Amino acid sequence: MKAIIITIGDEILFGQTIDTNSTWLANELDLMGIKVHEIISISDDETHIINTLSNATEKADMIIITGGLGPTDDDKTKSTLAKYFNTELTFHPEIYEEIIALFGKKKIAFLERNKQQAMLPANCIPLKNELGTAPGMWFYESNKVYVSLPGVPFEMKQIFTRKVIPRLKDTFLLPAISHRFILTAGYGESVLAEKLMEFEKKLPDNISMAYLPTLGMVKLRLTAKGNLKGELEQQLDEQVDFMKSYIDNVIFGYGRGNSLERVIGKWMSENNKTMATAESCTGGTISQRITSIPGSSAYFKGAVIAYSNEIKTNELDVSGEILNQFGAVSEETVTSMVSGLISRLDVDYGIAVSGIAGPDGGTPDKPVGTVWVAVGDRKHIRTKLLKLGKQREQNIKLSATFALNLLWRFIRS
Amino acid sequence: MKAIIITIGDEILFGQTIDTNSTWLANELDLMGIKVHEIISISDDETHIINTLSNATEKADMIIITGGLGPTDDDKTKSTLAKYFNTELTFHPEIYEEIIALFGKKKIAFLERNKQQAMLPANCIPLKNELGTAPGMWFYESNKVYVSLPGVPFEMKQIFTRKVIPRLKDTFLLPAISHRFILTAGYGESVLAEKLMEFEKKLPDNISMAYLPTLGMVKLRLTAKGNLKGELEQQLDEQVDFMKSYIDNVIFGYGRGNSLERVIGKWMSENNKTMATAESCTGGTISQRITSIPGSSAYFKGAVIAYSNEIKTNELDVSGEILNQFGAVSEETVTSMVSGLISRLDVDYGIAVSGIAGPDGGTPDKPVGTVWVAVGDRKHIRTKLLKLGKQREQNIKLSATFALNLLWRFIRS
Repeated sequence: MKAIIITIGDEILFGQTIDTNSTWLANELDLMGIKVHEIISISDDETHIINTLSNATEKADMIIITGGLGPTDDDKTKSTLAKYFNTELTFHPEIYEEIIALFGKKKIAFLERNKQQAMLPANCIPLKNELGTAPGMWFYESNKVYVSLPGVPFEMKQIFTRKVIPRLKDTFLLPAISHRFILTAGYGESVLAEKLMEFEKKLPDNISMAYLPTLGMVKLRLTAKGNLKGELEQQLDEQVDFMKSYIDNVIFGYGRGNSLERVIGKWMSENNKTMATAESCTGGTISQRITSIPGSSAYFKGAVIAYSNEIKTNELDVSGEILNQFGAVSEETVTSMVSGLISRLDVDYGIAVSGIAGPDGGTPDKPVGTVWVAVGDRKHIRTKLLKLGKQREQNIKLSATFALNLLWRFIRS
Repeated sequence: MKAIIITIGDEILFGQTIDTNSTWLANELDLMGIKVHEIISISDDETHIINTLSNATEKADMIIITGGLGPTDDDKTKSTLAKYFNTELTFHPEIYEEIIALFGKKKIAFLERNKQQAMLPANCIPLKNELGTAPGMWFYESNKVYVSLPGVPFEMKQIFTRKVIPRLKDTFLLPAISHRFILTAGYGESVLAEKLMEFEKKLPDNISMAYLPTLGMVKLRLTAKGNLKGELEQQLDEQVDFMKSYIDNVIFGYGRGNSLERVIGKWMSENNKTMATAESCTGGTISQRITSIPGSSAYFKGAVIAYSNEIKTNELDVSGEILNQFGAVSEETVTSMVSGLISRLDVDYGIAVSGIAGPDGGTPDKPVGTVWVAVGDRKHIRTKLLKLGKQREQNIKLSATFALNLLWRFIRS
């Protein structure tokens, strides 16, 4: 089962828009066990679209197209699809009604050109778009599936999830496939691969493992293929347990969309605890990550971003002596920041970070990339020294991840 | 002049990695006046690469390939290129010396397989990679250019900028082309288009304009094409001045990589002023954006992230009466937050934000998306009410941009 993804639109070819739609679709198809053979971005031009479609039809069983469905004249995809399938655009009254209703709900004036959105190739099955005016389309011709979706990411995702996936499952005999995502922080990819070498060798033939590294984290994915979903689930549960015997110390959570801030937030909520952060070089990045989680106001009281020493002293009670003797980037300062934070903001747990993110500000003693992290509660404080690289943005992001991981380890120990 | 970009590697086809390399390259080519005809992602497979190359050769003058140049066996690009050009891989001693030197500098053990990196197709001109072991390659065959670059973004970008652009300019007769980027915040794309309708109509034939919208901002790009660079620059300067007469009130800066946080930071540095933020619903996003700029410690003293009311009172001196009478999301509260912030952190300028980012927490009176912003100095405070949408992430980002823009307007008025 092979798929080709085609993105239509000049914004991508001009380098103005990053093609995140294709990445999302490729990931969804991969999780269903469908191999993506190619991803192609082309312009909204009739000849170009037809040539690309003919070419793709020879190579794939399934062609997913995004973009080019707007109501303006420069969106040529619908008429081109009609031409490609030797048919015509016909008026779909039920789609027209839906569009009118959507406009009513959004209290936006209905423009005559939006009526165009109800004109669709005669051979398509319309896929309802609940969030916008351009419906998706499903074509089944000569044993191949063609799907055309709007380019607006949240509309595309909803139609694909609700309308396309069920139809794909009905149309093709897809293998039963299940996944487990295991989230780790603390080892790099190569160390992790070494620790899991034996585990990987012992994996049953129908289970494969992938390493998905991001800054400061490695997500592991176990994929099982077979005939019976239930059997696969049980097999995967066993393998995850088995994996724990090798790397339990660096696993912080499970699940595809999980993260350190979610795991910590869930624990804080369930245990009725509160937390706060005191950040120097991370400049609010940790606070921003924690508050990106809906409902975080239940456990996150706030943060003091102490970029200047004055704020470290006045708002976090770090003494002038500590700052003078050891410097702002020191174990003593972050220790004092975290205890000042916990008592001033009256929280159960705190994180403090101070370091030199770069590109300037390094010394021979404390080069760019030197970062001290402290986490703790009212009784205990744990610290860690990071020696990172030269890239400011990367140093900030890595420090935030390491700090969250250190707090999670502290809570669990 | 047409280009095709080919990305090689399974990570993109599995949906694990977003193809930001192609976006970056497409933008660079576009700025040089070279049209990108297609962007194609394929797997690292000999037949697939050869078929894609043959196909691309028929359609474009220039083919840029990224990825597939690692030292491991699953990287097939180099041997495939040699095969495609009917030649062989030959050993390049000068590249070998460079790789050895690079390893020495990084203090990493040299592995025998890295020697492979000095084996290149006989017909290529190697392009030195100063940041990694895989050199880029330049081929000129039958009046077409082929460039192969490593997939690691910062290596790819450096080789393209330093080695490929000058060679492209030497090889092809490119038109003289110049750009101006005008950054605006305050109007949406459609309002802006209306205000600039007359301006656009009066543009000389050799100048075009593009709208590049992002959350809360619209970047405008003027592109002039002609024969003499100097003439174009002068023409563009005149047009920018002319544009100001239509939309001066929403222009906040100029330049491709510019941003509100850079413009504000530059002004603060030049005027020896300091600032701080008091954030509730934005949770540190404004602080994080300001501190993403190198050197921001010169003017940014810090922030109080007051997610709970307790912190608003204890750390920002917002009285219990104000919170009780008007609520945390109110003009009175943000006004009090910003004046508390300025006096507590002893800064010249402050920003305060309080709102309901969602998805929960809305009331009939103050639905999700209600956000109050205040900016000011010791004497004056200006406030603004935002009525945003239902998406938490979007609400947070938009609030941050609006708040920065409000501060910039305040400073300039």
